[in-house]
Amino acid sequence: MNELIEKGIKAKNAAGQLSQLSTQQKNNALKHAADELINEAEFILNENQKDLEAASANNVKGALLDRLRLTRDRIESMAEGLEQVARLDDPVGEVLYMKKRPNGLQIGQIRVPLGVIGIIYEARPNVTADAFALCLKTGNAVILRGGKEAINSNKAIVKVIQDALNNKKVPVDAIQLVEDTSRESAVAMMKLNKYLDVLIPRGGAGLIQTVVENSSVPVLETGVGNCHTFIDESADLQKAQKIAVNAKTHRPGVCNAMESLLVHSSVADKILPPLCDELKNLNVEIRGDDTVQKLVPFAISATEEDWSTEYLDLILAVKVVSSLDEAINHINTYGSSHSECIVTENYSNAQRFLQEVDAAAVYVNASTRFTDGFEFGFGAEIGISTQKLHARGPMGLKELTSTKYIIYGNGQIR
Amino acid sequence: MNELIEKGIKAKNAAGQLSQLSTQQKNNALKHAADELINEAEFILNENQKDLEAASANNVKGALLDRLRLTRDRIESMAEGLEQVARLDDPVGEVLYMKKRPNGLQIGQIRVPLGVIGIIYEARPNVTADAFALCLKTGNAVILRGGKEAINSNKAIVKVIQDALNNKKVPVDAIQLVEDTSRESAVAMMKLNKYLDVLIPRGGAGLIQTVVENSSVPVLETGVGNCHTFIDESADLQKAQKIAVNAKTHRPGVCNAMESLLVHSSVADKILPPLCDELKNLNVEIRGDDTVQKLVPFAISATEEDWSTEYLDLILAVKVVSSLDEAINHINTYGSSHSECIVTENYSNAQRFLQEVDAAAVYVNASTRFTDGFEFGFGAEIGISTQKLHARGPMGLKELTSTKYIIYGNGQIR
Repeated sequence: MNELIEKGIKAKNAAGQLSQLSTQQKNNALKHAADELINEAEFILNENQKDLEAASANNVKGALLDRLRLTRDRIESMAEGLEQVARLDDPVGEVLYMKKRPNGLQIGQIRVPLGVIGIIYEARPNVTADAFALCLKTGNAVILRGGKEAINSNKAIVKVIQDALNNKKVPVDAIQLVEDTSRESAVAMMKLNKYLDVLIPRGGAGLIQTVVENSSVPVLETGVGNCHTFIDESADLQKAQKIAVNAKTHRPGVCNAMESLLVHSSVADKILPPLCDELKNLNVEIRGDDTVQKLVPFAISATEEDWSTEYLDLILAVKVVSSLDEAINHINTYGSSHSECIVTENYSNAQRFLQEVDAAAVYVNASTRFTDGFEFGFGAEIGISTQKLHARGPMGLKELTSTKYIIYGNGQIR
Repeated sequence: MNELIEKGIKAKNAAGQLSQLSTQQKNNALKHAADELINEAEFILNENQKDLEAASANNVKGALLDRLRLTRDRIESMAEGLEQVARLDDPVGEVLYMKKRPNGLQIGQIRVPLGVIGIIYEARPNVTADAFALCLKTGNAVILRGGKEAINSNKAIVKVIQDALNNKKVPVDAIQLVEDTSRESAVAMMKLNKYLDVLIPRGGAGLIQTVVENSSVPVLETGVGNCHTFIDESADLQKAQKIAVNAKTHRPGVCNAMESLLVHSSVADKILPPLCDELKNLNVEIRGDDTVQKLVPFAISATEEDWSTEYLDLILAVKVVSSLDEAINHINTYGSSHSECIVTENYSNAQRFLQEVDAAAVYVNASTRFTDGFEFGFGAEIGISTQKLHARGPMGLKELTSTKYIIYGNGQIR
């Protein structure tokens, strides 16, 4: 993969320079790139049209085709995304601490860029601009390897951004696109340890799984969410119904949507009939255990597989449990450690749930839909980490940095 | 690998319980395990004797045999290590921040254990006790896979610790030893994503490389150190000589020892003759470029390979450079991003070196030998990370933890 090695070398060189840029230089470049995306919208749309035509010829339809499509509005959102990132605080250079050791050494830990970030993604051209913005703001170089369906759109977006960088005297290799969209180029990228400091897969479960299994480059794993809501014995049932309906139906295709509902047996007959009626009216299919099927006539039978399925669809698995312990066990067994919620008015149960459920985000009395970089106040996100190393939960700018120890001495030896 | 899957399941169960233990419970278990290591020293030494005899029969000699050997003193140090870890602050449960969002959601980030940690190491039985102590204190379960040379010693140490845990009602599966020491068991461990949250290789460059290349479990990469000291134009030459001699000779076999010395051309003729004389008297072999060879008659010729070699021995590569830029470039090109030092009295050069050198620890006017968890004040260390994800530099207890978002709501929906 000569292309990758060549781009790796260029990225590493660029990373050295990017790490030294001032916040102002980075912001100016981001703002100028935003302007240029709008100025060059016609060019980008024309290139996007080529991708759309090729996709149609290949019988690509529905959601996939929609994700691939750019419009003037969508280009304006991309540009607005760059402007937003420019307005965020720059985490690079933050001094995390500084202390004096007994021998007089002054040891500080400061935030630095990661270096070179690789991103493997599918057919959403807006990821190209989004990922670039977050990487540039944090002083990282990025090598992007998008899906073949979006190659013309991606090339156009990268060209516009590179021209803008060049204009602002920022190294153009801050953003590079892998033009070889074969399976081999993705595999080679997973072995590019010499040049990549981290690899982030963005896309469906299959892509993420492949990268996790095959990458020798450290991976930031994002996203599978088999999220639960547990309605406890003491829940305020009105709150519970609102939260469950929101978690399931507000946007069923995303990772923080609820996939399974657990209900305490002592409130099942009160909450399940009205809640499931409301869900049914919102076109949600209910799959339940025996008790659920008795209480909800239209519920179909849930299988073992349902408990571990991320539907990303208007389907909900429902189970009646006899205790908080059973709920926690069920979640820790079948969940994907993404976002989990208890609805309860009981203080001790709330605290136990927060403490014992092993997940990136654990909620009391709120919809799991809030697990999101913007909702958490990070201003942006590169994804939601479901691993435990480096970052867990929504990842904003800070999560795209590393640290460095700096030590001021005056001749100390051991 | 049935053994690994069985141990993985047990470890995951134990991890759930360990994450809920109070600091006091963990400390009591550590102290009791320390006492029992001493009480059972005879048993451990007998088992160690079996390993030593097998090793001698296999012609194992020198440093390797010495690392394998346990003595009463060494068992006492292991026990003291456990006591020390018991005295450290428990990072688990620390609230990193808590803030209120505009919608009233209260979002906090707290420190939690990683879960299950795998450690692959070589023939040093003391790692068994050390690694256990750090993992237990941080509420993690550990699966240890040590070298076959130490199998009897490791089994003995693990048995003593498990009995002590049992006695204190702490899950015995907090520590488990993989008894199959074949290459296959190591490889299988690198694919144990279902049960391991992180894998830490401890040992030589070959072992670390194998794990980085083959593990689909997230890896914490420790250790290769090709460390430099750069003596700048304005250096206090007396300080420079002391620092260089210390960095090279204090303990040449460790990763934070200096391997290459860079000297500014304007001070080379003043510093190199006396410094190299002192190093020669300490049995250090000098390998230099042309200028060095002119100034130091006993210096032999350095090859391109020398600049990137971690000798871990009394050998030093020496190069004369004409500027700070050349020094920084050389370090960023050939270094391993471990520990790098500038000796200078020039303010701007010191700041530029700290800023532009890409390494875990960057020093002004102090020996690189200080890159160490104890010297940094962490009280203990599991290794020195040379990667940029999760942890960089010496890793103490905090680096064995992850985080979790906890969210207090009162009915919020999106």
